Amino acid sequence: MKKTTLPVGMHDKLFKRAVSMYRLERDISDLLINQQFTRIETPTLEHAEVFGDELNNTHYHLFDKSGDLLSLRPDITSQVGRVIASTQVTTPIKFSYSGKVFNYNEEMRGLINEHTQAGVEIVGFPADKALKEAVLSAKSALDVAGVKVYQFEFSHAGILQTIFEELQLDDRLLGDLETAIIDKNITGLNGFTKTHPSEFDRLIRELPFLFGESHEVLMKARQLANNKTILKALDDLEVMLGDIYRFLPQTTIDLAQVPSLPYYTGMMFKVFGENVPDAFVSGGRYDKLFERFGAKELTAVGWAVDLDSIYRAIHNSLEGVK
Amino acid sequence: MKKTTLPVGMHDKLFKRAVSMYRLERDISDLLINQQFTRIETPTLEHAEVFGDELNNTHYHLFDKSGDLLSLRPDITSQVGRVIASTQVTTPIKFSYSGKVFNYNEEMRGLINEHTQAGVEIVGFPADKALKEAVLSAKSALDVAGVKVYQFEFSHAGILQTIFEELQLDDRLLGDLETAIIDKNITGLNGFTKTHPSEFDRLIRELPFLFGESHEVLMKARQLANNKTILKALDDLEVMLGDIYRFLPQTTIDLAQVPSLPYYTGMMFKVFGENVPDAFVSGGRYDKLFERFGAKELTAVGWAVDLDSIYRAIHNSLEGVK
Repeated sequence: MKKTTLPVGMHDKLFKRAVSMYRLERDISDLLINQQFTRIETPTLEHAEVFGDELNNTHYHLFDKSGDLLSLRPDITSQVGRVIASTQVTTPIKFSYSGKVFNYNEEMRGLINEHTQAGVEIVGFPADKALKEAVLSAKSALDVAGVKVYQFEFSHAGILQTIFEELQLDDRLLGDLETAIIDKNITGLNGFTKTHPSEFDRLIRELPFLFGESHEVLMKARQLANNKTILKALDDLEVMLGDIYRFLPQTTIDLAQVPSLPYYTGMMFKVFGENVPDAFVSGGRYDKLFERFGAKELTAVGWAVDLDSIYRAIHNSLEGVK
Repeated sequence: MKKTTLPVGMHDKLFKRAVSMYRLERDISDLLINQQFTRIETPTLEHAEVFGDELNNTHYHLFDKSGDLLSLRPDITSQVGRVIASTQVTTPIKFSYSGKVFNYNEEMRGLINEHTQAGVEIVGFPADKALKEAVLSAKSALDVAGVKVYQFEFSHAGILQTIFEELQLDDRLLGDLETAIIDKNITGLNGFTKTHPSEFDRLIRELPFLFGESHEVLMKARQLANNKTILKALDDLEVMLGDIYRFLPQTTIDLAQVPSLPYYTGMMFKVFGENVPDAFVSGGRYDKLFERFGAKELTAVGWAVDLDSIYRAIHNSLEGVK
């Protein structure tokens, strides 16, 4: 008799869950195609190096018969970056996609190691237009999915990147600082500024408090920052929030948002809701991704929505993760 | 700079191809849900043993962190068999699904190692009703996909299985005989009946010619067969063809069809079309699949349609496999 248990993090979806997940993927895919996003489908397996400079132990790896190390894709944005950098696709272009992504052992997400994502990549358009379209298309996807309660939270990769670059930390110290920021570890951040004093001391110490209603956070942050690049990032955030105010009047900012993917270069956003621990949607600007594949920098903004989280939020059911 | 080539058999789908593939999967999925098939989604990764007794070198394998050997699923029917045998799903039930399946290095299929499939499994219903519904739902899927020219070809797993069992061949000889049957190797089959004479000699020698218009093939086969089980299989085929005649008046039979999956136990069918070397659709009866997972035999019929082949057939384009 064969084993009937499933591998760690793998699940069958039955009945309401299966048909709801199917309809979520279909309705968001149809919406994006109707919004003139060009559909793209990338393969489940890629060479591992497409997804990062170093092997990541949260990825699934295997060797193919020619001895190449492959990954089950952990994200689709890297693949779209590869396509744009290496094929005859011409920009500007806006892509939409949906499909499976794989991450090993994410305890925080209820041990779901295979997720269904949908998303867009907007590449080569003027930045203000692209940012606005990214945010509004993400909002329309949540609306068509039937999500009633959601909160957009913005940040800017340039702020922490500027601090990290100027401080010139080694990898271990950088990792410690990132962890302290993510954990909003006030004692840890105070300690860090004592052992590594810099022009960013006040900003670093206040990072755990720099979240909440957008305009309040921007005001507080401006009082703490002297660095030109950081002040420019705050200005950019304010302009972008003005552009979308008519559609999203209630936004928040969290300046302690550490880029969830290494290629983010500017504005980032997440969308949170009820009943789910993690963000439904992660997005941002990633102009430098194409350089990894030998092409030039391009203005690029994208987002991905995690349909498993959406399902949990809208069904709010006792079954939990089946 | 990162590698921008794709692993063997992996492909990007762009523009017309991407949106057409998406719509094919959506339209067939919607059709089947509307026909009251219960949607099911099974995981991309399973323990390797779910898919067969021995490791198959056309499957993609990897170890997970707990040391278990996993496969990227090569088919979905085995997974649905596992679900029915091991969960609280009650029968009768009819499932529909769509998703990716993976097979390594199928040169015959233009080196597409990741295919999109859709299909159904009808389990626990009376056999005549289930067979009819399977054939008609496959036909309706081809119609909704826009396939203009297709040909259903039937067979019965019991015919070759009876011959193989009665002959009591060792694995090597069995493999040789199967190959000679698949290749319609007349000399090889004549040679076999000389070295291994049996009551099936005439039938075995004529197998390469037992294909074509259904009633002619049935008539020819009845003249060649004395075995009761084989005659019963021919009767069953005739009854089933009568049941569907109103919807599919022009059917063919190929009695040299070797089961494409090891679990077939009765009627089998394939659907062929223009511009594609392989069958669009493979289906059949597989009552014994559940025993592999510790459950009892159940009347079961299913089919899967290969959407990559459908795309090639309906677009008949010069681009070929991109």
